[in-house]
Amino acid sequence: MKERYFDDLKVGNRFQSEPFKVTGKTIIEFAEKYDPQKFHFNAKSAERSIFKGLTASGWHTAAITMRLFVKTLNFAEGAIGLGVDKLRWPNPVRPGDALRVRTEIIRLRPSRSKPNYGIIRLRNETKNQRGEIVQTMMASAMVSRRADARDHKPTDHKTTD
Amino acid sequence: MKERYFDDLKVGNRFQSEPFKVTGKTIIEFAEKYDPQKFHFNAKSAERSIFKGLTASGWHTAAITMRLFVKTLNFAEGAIGLGVDKLRWPNPVRPGDALRVRTEIIRLRPSRSKPNYGIIRLRNETKNQRGEIVQTMMASAMVSRRADARDHKPTDHKTTD
Repeated sequence: MKERYFDDLKVGNRFQSEPFKVTGKTIIEFAEKYDPQKFHFNAKSAERSIFKGLTASGWHTAAITMRLFVKTLNFAEGAIGLGVDKLRWPNPVRPGDALRVRTEIIRLRPSRSKPNYGIIRLRNETKNQRGEIVQTMMASAMVSRRADARDHKPTDHKTTD
Repeated sequence: MKERYFDDLKVGNRFQSEPFKVTGKTIIEFAEKYDPQKFHFNAKSAERSIFKGLTASGWHTAAITMRLFVKTLNFAEGAIGLGVDKLRWPNPVRPGDALRVRTEIIRLRPSRSKPNYGIIRLRNETKNQRGEIVQTMMASAMVSRRADARDHKPTDHKTTD
């Protein structure tokens, strides 16, 4: 699979991940470790909850989204997360759901302090197999520039910051 | 441990979690599942990375923060995450770090659509054993009201929304 660098991206580029199947077992495993609230790992509590059944922790959905994003974009030297904004979970994730992530590149700029890196701003939207949105977020990440592009400026960045 | 309801909280309340030790093994396990970038699970890639050593995925730090928050606040019927803003990772988490979360209640209001619930706005700050901030975030969550408080309004909420 093609490895990507900062310089390969343009504002407006869109990417679609492969689907990822979420099982009840992994929902419970994740919740027991990282979101130990009964309605996320106990079948009876889940039934009595506002969701009327087992649902994944929002942080599990976020983690799965990261996996799909990383695999789809496949940055040559990785993407270092700087921050996330407007992380929302408009619908729950349930056992058997198959999630896909759509990524859109919103902004690109070279790093001010690290000439070998560029900063990307992106939007990730995670949907289930019925097309319902289960998560949206904006994120900034630092990714490597191509060696031959480190003296150049990309064409699609804001020059004001 | 005391179980909490929406009505037990006041704006300005602060809570401090127990420490949570992060191991290299769990950093690698989490990364292989949810953030499969070499510098998060391969020792050599980690050494060559900008961090010069193994570091946890930001989503792992977020998941550990959720665990500590949930255990500390101990909501009687759980906290349902509505959204997160300004999630930042100013310093990396490394093997052996012991993380603690400090929670501050920023705002409280009854749910408009669900009279049995209230909405809390909070700030979580996660620090390592040296007092370095490894994560900050703002979050909104829905939590149950006490049965005898469902007809009342809490004293510390904004009445305009």
